[in-house]
Amino acid sequence: MPLQPHDETWKTLHTHIDEWVAVSKTHTLEGHVASYIPELANASGDILGICLMDSEGQTILSGDSNFRFTLQSISKVFSLILALMDNGEDVVFSKVGMEPTGDDFNSMLKLELIEPGIPFNPLINAGAIAISSLIAGQSPDEQIERILHFFRDIANNPSLSVNQNVFKSESDTAHRNRSLAYFLKDNGVLDQEVDDVLRVYFSHCSIEVDCTDLARMALVLAHNGVDPIRKQRLIPRRFVQIAKTFMFTCGMYNASGEFALNVGLPAKSGVSGSILTMVPGQYGIGIVGPALNRKGNSTAGVHLLGILSQEFDWSMF
Amino acid sequence: MPLQPHDETWKTLHTHIDEWVAVSKTHTLEGHVASYIPELANASGDILGICLMDSEGQTILSGDSNFRFTLQSISKVFSLILALMDNGEDVVFSKVGMEPTGDDFNSMLKLELIEPGIPFNPLINAGAIAISSLIAGQSPDEQIERILHFFRDIANNPSLSVNQNVFKSESDTAHRNRSLAYFLKDNGVLDQEVDDVLRVYFSHCSIEVDCTDLARMALVLAHNGVDPIRKQRLIPRRFVQIAKTFMFTCGMYNASGEFALNVGLPAKSGVSGSILTMVPGQYGIGIVGPALNRKGNSTAGVHLLGILSQEFDWSMF
Amino acid sequence: MPLQPHDETWKTLHTHIDEWVAVSKTHTLEGHVASYIPELANASGDILGICLMDSEGQTILSGDSNFRFTLQSISKVFSLILALMDNGEDVVFSKVGMEPTGDDFNSMLKLELIEPGIPFNPLINAGAIAISSLIAGQSPDEQIERILHFFRDIANNPSLSVNQNVFKSESDTAHRNRSLAYFLKDNGVLDQEVDDVLRVYFSHCSIEVDCTDLARMALVLAHNGVDPIRKQRLIPRRFVQIAKTFMFTCGMYNASGEFALNVGLPAKSGVSGSILTMVPGQYGIGIVGPALNRKGNSTAGVHLLGILSQEFDWSMF
Amino acid sequence: MPLQPHDETWKTLHTHIDEWVAVSKTHTLEGHVASYIPELANASGDILGICLMDSEGQTILSGDSNFRFTLQSISKVFSLILALMDNGEDVVFSKVGMEPTGDDFNSMLKLELIEPGIPFNPLINAGAIAISSLIAGQSPDEQIERILHFFRDIANNPSLSVNQNVFKSESDTAHRNRSLAYFLKDNGVLDQEVDDVLRVYFSHCSIEVDCTDLARMALVLAHNGVDPIRKQRLIPRRFVQIAKTFMFTCGMYNASGEFALNVGLPAKSGVSGSILTMVPGQYGIGIVGPALNRKGNSTAGVHLLGILSQEFDWSMF
Repeated sequence: MPLQPHDETWKTLHTHIDEWVAVSKTHTLEGHVASYIPELANASGDILGICLMDSEGQTILSGDSNFRFTLQSISKVFSLILALMDNGEDVVFSKVGMEPTGDDFNSMLKLELIEPGIPFNPLINAGAIAISSLIAGQSPDEQIERILHFFRDIANNPSLSVNQNVFKSESDTAHRNRSLAYFLKDNGVLDQEVDDVLRVYFSHCSIEVDCTDLARMALVLAHNGVDPIRKQRLIPRRFVQIAKTFMFTCGMYNASGEFALNVGLPAKSGVSGSILTMVPGQYGIGIVGPALNRKGNSTAGVHLLGILSQEFDWSMF
Repeated sequence: MPLQPHDETWKTLHTHIDEWVAVSKTHTLEGHVASYIPELANASGDILGICLMDSEGQTILSGDSNFRFTLQSISKVFSLILALMDNGEDVVFSKVGMEPTGDDFNSMLKLELIEPGIPFNPLINAGAIAISSLIAGQSPDEQIERILHFFRDIANNPSLSVNQNVFKSESDTAHRNRSLAYFLKDNGVLDQEVDDVLRVYFSHCSIEVDCTDLARMALVLAHNGVDPIRKQRLIPRRFVQIAKTFMFTCGMYNASGEFALNVGLPAKSGVSGSILTMVPGQYGIGIVGPALNRKGNSTAGVHLLGILSQEFDWSMF
Repeated sequence: MPLQPHDETWKTLHTHIDEWVAVSKTHTLEGHVASYIPELANASGDILGICLMDSEGQTILSGDSNFRFTLQSISKVFSLILALMDNGEDVVFSKVGMEPTGDDFNSMLKLELIEPGIPFNPLINAGAIAISSLIAGQSPDEQIERILHFFRDIANNPSLSVNQNVFKSESDTAHRNRSLAYFLKDNGVLDQEVDDVLRVYFSHCSIEVDCTDLARMALVLAHNGVDPIRKQRLIPRRFVQIAKTFMFTCGMYNASGEFALNVGLPAKSGVSGSILTMVPGQYGIGIVGPALNRKGNSTAGVHLLGILSQEFDWSMF
Repeated sequence: MPLQPHDETWKTLHTHIDEWVAVSKTHTLEGHVASYIPELANASGDILGICLMDSEGQTILSGDSNFRFTLQSISKVFSLILALMDNGEDVVFSKVGMEPTGDDFNSMLKLELIEPGIPFNPLINAGAIAISSLIAGQSPDEQIERILHFFRDIANNPSLSVNQNVFKSESDTAHRNRSLAYFLKDNGVLDQEVDDVLRVYFSHCSIEVDCTDLARMALVLAHNGVDPIRKQRLIPRRFVQIAKTFMFTCGMYNASGEFALNVGLPAKSGVSGSILTMVPGQYGIGIVGPALNRKGNSTAGVHLLGILSQEFDWSMF
């Protein structure tokens, strides 16, 4: 599938992006802002913003692209990569599996029912909690510090930091995640204290970014671990391959299959309404639209990506 | 089913109990002492003791009847009764259901899968944790104090107390129960803090008794809430009826149906290898035999009750 | 729990039964006639009838007691007994388990998830289908003939026969039962052809009776297998004990626990709105009220039994 | 990821394929030939064959490449495509979902537990059975005829036909599939008779091919629906896109995620030990190695594809 030459795509994007954002924005009405974390519930439901970034760092911005939000589940992709860099594949895949699952992201069903009782993959909550426990560091503080350092490097933004209000809000209310973590502890998946692991987990979920940060992080994945702007390898290629494969098969919660059919790009969503995706070899893309559909993905964001993928024939298949 | 006259049964018991205990004791070899709580794992696997008590307080003791152990799940029966006395039926059954379930005592399957997400009954762990939260009291300490007071009254033994080593051992290792409790908290079943509720729960599980204590407690249930020795009503009859019905349908974990067919008496077992049962209107019975079968019940204890039930035609059906 | 003397109970019943039936009948409005079998859907929702029979054959009839209906799941109790008489306990319990399950009567959940893949008990559909395959006979026709003969004997009614319209209606539409049966076949539980087993199963479910037939059948169980009127043993006592124990723990679908708490008698319900129950040692009781609650039990029938149990203190606990 | 120029790859393949096949063949010892269908159990476990075909129709053959086998689950890909061509996306996706599931290919778990009760995707058995019912035709015979015609066209082999022994063997023994089909019928997913639908399903599973047939069929998918040899469009591109996306996310049973990480190509396996895969835009690949791993995939075949993917950097990510 030869992509259109970059210049042409870029020109068309410039011309039409505002119109496509406007059309997609009407779909915010079908969704609901996540309410289970009080801090997230404050976001305005009619927001939609996007940033596309090419390999020279040029950006196209549209809509509420300067809205700030927390990474939430998008952080799972990069904590997975850091855990792989810290431990290698063998250790990581002794703690989490490789298979997509059609169950809710916070389901315990398969932990309880299906041997060997490790999370099905690193992108569901149970898996991401297990991954958080694998980040190198002598203490939760050191683990969090290393994560922040890594994320800042990928985003090329030294000011990225944890939104403490969101962190506190998540930490106080996430009984289900706590339940999952104790379940994992009981199954022997977690070695550390649950409270320590969850502090790491909630911290990386609460890192605050904007669409441009997302696009820059995505750009590094689109270029297989090399930041094409700084011309610097940040991640070994194999670990990017692993991350992108998981994004394709399980990145959009239990609508991953539908997204693969309708958009066809590796992507990861978060309950803040954010989506990080990319056109392999070309663009990094960051989107935010806090109104979510029943599966937990941004209604307007998914719609906008559908338009773009169809317009530019971006599906990998 | 007219029971044999008391005198004759009592005489036969006196004559044969040691022999029946000896025969049953060989079945301890088929079982294993619970290992998931370190303090329990210390018990000797070849122990078997029994106490039968009649309505005048006469006892027949055999085997290791002076062995001391903790109530574990047997305590669930009396915390249920106290919760009913504190709150009434309506409140209690808004937090737990009434149905037996063939699942493991610590399974989350039905909490997750089946509406409305409350525990299926008060004798599985999730249900008993919910019940613990309903005990009246301004603080966990006060709740524990009230439970102790109640249990001492039923057992007519003011020296009953919490075995702090077992309590600490349970509290430190019961990740699965903690997972269950956070799940319940997430489902809105628990109002209090998980740590507080579990402190109450682990405390009543860790109350130390011997077979004579069990027999006395059972005797009160056998007489519908009246202590026939002191001739004093300790529990409203309806709440004893509820407790005994649950003991019959769900008292022996997921071997309750098998026990109902083979023994046919209301009973409750604990992972300490203890069984509390009764002949309605007649005897209270306490048994301990720490070696457990796969379902969590005392192998020798269940065998001994099978002999007794068959010998004296004790099945209620 | 000493029961009231028979004469007094009988007198009170005579005086009040019509009034209690009238009160209970209002509860038919809360239920819905089973619609999944077209022939059943024809029944009028406001019907409620009862027959009580004492050990001399005296009956008290009230409401629509002459309404005719098919046994449906009530037949499972007697096919279980016949299978026990034909095969003994060991064979029967190699094909079905002994445990109650809180799942729907036609669920496959535990067949699929929980070893060893045999039905949890003989009163859920999967279990009753397995039981049907165990009835002695060279052919389905011979098996059905033997069942009819046995049921007629218990009911002391040589005219009992299969309602062919209902049989055909069930046979044509019961895709779920067919699915269950093939699942059992795949698990090695059924030796015979699925179609043959289901013909036997649907046949005994479709045997037509009235409340008096039910009461007479129940009377034999109430007297441990002896027909007290003809003074003739029809069933070995142990098999009645097994049947009554299952009725108590699993007889009312996944409301068995609730019924045990609120009525406290061994009982079996059918989707025709029928309930067979008994006062052990005393009465046989047959009820019909086609409007069902969500769990599949007669709304008015359950209500009426609640009144009677409370009035006469009939709970076994 | 720029692929190596075709000539170089082809030359390396020629040089090394026999050696790679020999190495992979040792892995047949870890697997077991499928035994659940008697006819399949006859295959020799140490077989391994491969055919690669380029866009001009040149082939590289190695190992037991002339071994003949039945398509089994590989047929699901092409029956899906035909159903899409016959009905369009909307109809097809009203009967099956789009999501991968980590459950066994013949599990009923999610049909029973998760709304709306349609199969999770068209490549698990339940989904493929639903798809079979959608093939146009006035009768099962006509449906089968149309399938054969379509498969022959894709494979450019007019002699493809149903292996009647395998068909009969499957049809006689597949109780689980029959159970699934009745479950679907009960859920309203199937309109036709179960026996008719299964005849169509077992027929396309039993179409006999060799590795060259598989490679040719794969080549058409690799070229987005155009047969590059005959230069003829056989399938609309969108439907190939759908098929390849499902192959990537769910083509290798519940090892699809692992295969995506380790090989990274769209593929479909069958219990005959066959694998159809492709290098998009370039080659069609057919493999057979009847010894299966626990997940149902050819041990040696998966190993061989791992070597090839790594050697030539074929992963799409």
